[in-house]
This record gives sequence, structure tokens and C-alpha cells, in this order.
Amino acid sequence: MRIAVLGGTGSLGKGLVLRLASLGYDVVVGSRDRNKAEAKAREYGEIVGVRIRGSDNRSASKDCDVAIVTIPWKHAFDTVAELREELADKIVVSPVVPMEKTDRGFVYVNLPEGSAAEKMASLLPNSRIVAAYHNIPAKKFADLNAEFEWDVAVCGDDEEAKRVVIDMTNGIRGLRALDAGGLRNSRIVESITPLLINIAIRNGMKELGVRFV
Amino acid sequence: MRIAVLGGTGSLGKGLVLRLASLGYDVVVGSRDRNKAEAKAREYGEIVGVRIRGSDNRSASKDCDVAIVTIPWKHAFDTVAELREELADKIVVSPVVPMEKTDRGFVYVNLPEGSAAEKMASLLPNSRIVAAYHNIPAKKFADLNAEFEWDVAVCGDDEEAKRVVIDMTNGIRGLRALDAGGLRNSRIVESITPLLINIAIRNGMKELGVRFV
Repeated sequence: MRIAVLGGTGSLGKGLVLRLASLGYDVVVGSRDRNKAEAKAREYGEIVGVRIRGSDNRSASKDCDVAIVTIPWKHAFDTVAELREELADKIVVSPVVPMEKTDRGFVYVNLPEGSAAEKMASLLPNSRIVAAYHNIPAKKFADLNAEFEWDVAVCGDDEEAKRVVIDMTNGIRGLRALDAGGLRNSRIVESITPLLINIAIRNGMKELGVRFV
Repeated sequence: MRIAVLGGTGSLGKGLVLRLASLGYDVVVGSRDRNKAEAKAREYGEIVGVRIRGSDNRSASKDCDVAIVTIPWKHAFDTVAELREELADKIVVSPVVPMEKTDRGFVYVNLPEGSAAEKMASLLPNSRIVAAYHNIPAKKFADLNAEFEWDVAVCGDDEEAKRVVIDMTNGIRGLRALDAGGLRNSRIVESITPLLINIAIRNGMKELGVRFV
């Protein structure tokens, strides 16, 4: 299975690329900047000792079965809107969380579509949208030596696509994927991320994920 | 400290009454029906071997320092609105979650005020509202033999009142209270409850709480 990690040069992208490539998936790092993507892909490949490709987001999208959009929310929507054709029929994973920092801490930003994943579904009507990976602390996840036990709540209306993402995720050590229902539920999962950050700040904690126990 | 558990005849109320009375708090079970409250108070008192009082919600509210509103959301608001005077200056704890069952699972019900806790604050402008205990699986919590390790995200704009609830909660074995910021954040915490129920149903799990790790 070929996996494109769009915007794969950030921390969440790095963590996913390293871990999925280690599991034997054919992973391509996507970026607006092809040179940057190729440089990062070489760097990541040296860390895990396997070949990882780098490419611009468009080529990476065309040449994949699953695209994971690890792009900050303010740029994610414009980026995927331009890739509608390339991403048609593909599984597109949204870990996107619309949030902003205020003087009262981090707040979830309400979108008219209900959630970032639902907005992505409206922009990519021919893609199979799955929401996942929102609540993973990215910096810790990018460190292959880090120890964690986190749950990944996965939402989607395409049950087969959701199952692909759940199985892929369960292969990653320290992650447990759980079916969290339809895309309509993604708003709640997305909004847990600013809550985690606020709890960490207020209680002197760091890099919090979530467990359902 | 005198604690009134309004609607204390349900599972969440039972769990709180048993555990707080065991810790030495002076607990009164409140109910619309005074006789039912007295009968439940006797039953709970026999379980933990301490005296627990029962009373109607109005008397219980008048005679307490902290009132915990363990009343289903469709009745909670009308009940507290009638107790505005009795609950003035008191710490009022809202574990209330507005949700309903649909053919696509449980969904959080949006309230114009933002959350149940914020609606309660608007109904009780002279009370000190704290949001807590939303994500506790009530039936398991009511069983004193149950083993669990759950986090309680606590929200409130009155920092002193929030601290009282956090300290009280941390006394309960198996619970860890975390400051989750202002009342504005309570919507997210409330909405985790239908998510927990949906995840439990879809993944063959039971009585799920949450841990921030």
C-alpha cells in the first residue's frame, strides 16, 4: 500500500512517515516544495534504514492509495481543494484540528461544515475521507525512542476505508485505533486536542494523548 | 463540608454519595421525592456504615456548601432554576451532559449557551458553577468493588470553587482531577461522553472513562 504523507515535513508527518516506513509501507513525503520533501525523505530514510521517496504534494497525491493530510488547518483546505482530481477515489486521512490560541487558552474553531474532516469531505466529494490522529502529541510521536500508549479515535462514513486506517494504525507500536463512528463524530475528536493542550498547560504536564479505559 | 447530591438516587449520585460519605464528608441525598431520598440515604448509609441524610432537593440545597446536580439533562435545568435562592453563593457542580440517541449513535445536543454548565451558570447567576464528573461511567462508579483509573476534567471560572472540587475529587480512589480551564471549555468535556458511549458500542467495550496520558 502506497501512503502519501502530505505536508510530511512537520512533526506529525515525520512520526507517521518513520513509523509506517518501518512497517514496510511504501511511503512518500509530500510538500509544497519538492526539494524540501526530497531532503526530508532522505533524512527520514536514513533514520529507519529504508528508502523513502519525497515529492511535491500533487505528484505524491497522484501516486498513492492513502493520503494523510498533515498540514496546519489554515492551509490544509486550500491545499486539498487543488488536489481534488489527484485524490479522487483515494482514502484521504484528516488529522486536521481547527484551533487557535486566545488569552483564555486554546479554543476549538467552529467551522460551518461541523468539523475539519467534514469540510474536507465537502471539498473532496470523490475521496474517501477518514478522520484520525488528531490527539497524538506530534513532537513526542516523531521521536522513535518515546514510550506511549495512546488511543486513536477514527471516524468515517466509508466503513471499508475506515477499516484500512484502523488496521494500519494498529500496526504502530503504542497506538490503539478505535472505531468512533461516522464523520459527524469527528468534531468531538478534533476538539479534544485543544482540551489536551489546556490540561497540559494548567496541570504542569506535557505531550498529553488520550486513552479510553 | 456539607455536600448535597441532588437527584442522588441515580447511579452517578449513588457512586458520589457512597464514596464522599466514606471519606468523612457530611452528605445529603436530594430528590424530588423526600421519602425516596430518605430510603436511598438509609440504603447507602448501610453500605458504607456511616449516617447519610435524605431530603427533598430544596432542603438539601439550602443546607449545603456544595451541591452536585446528578439529574438527567432534560430535567436538570428546570430543577436548578427553581432553586436559585437556595443555591446562591454555593458551589454548584454540573456533571450534566446534553445528549440523545439517534440511528447513528449518541450525539451531543448543542445548547445556545454553549454547554450544560454554561446554561446552568446563566440560570444560577449567584452560584459558583463548576463542571465535573461528565465522563465517569455511572454504573461502574456506583459499584464500590469496581477497579478503575479515570481522569476528571474540571472546568470553572471561579478558581477557588474549582480548587475545592478538584481536591474533593482527588480524595476518591481511582479518580484524578485535572484543571481543564474555564467554563467555556466545558462543552468539549461534556461532548466526550457520547463519544465514549459510541466507542464502547462500536468496539465491544464497556463502561469507558478517559485518561489523559
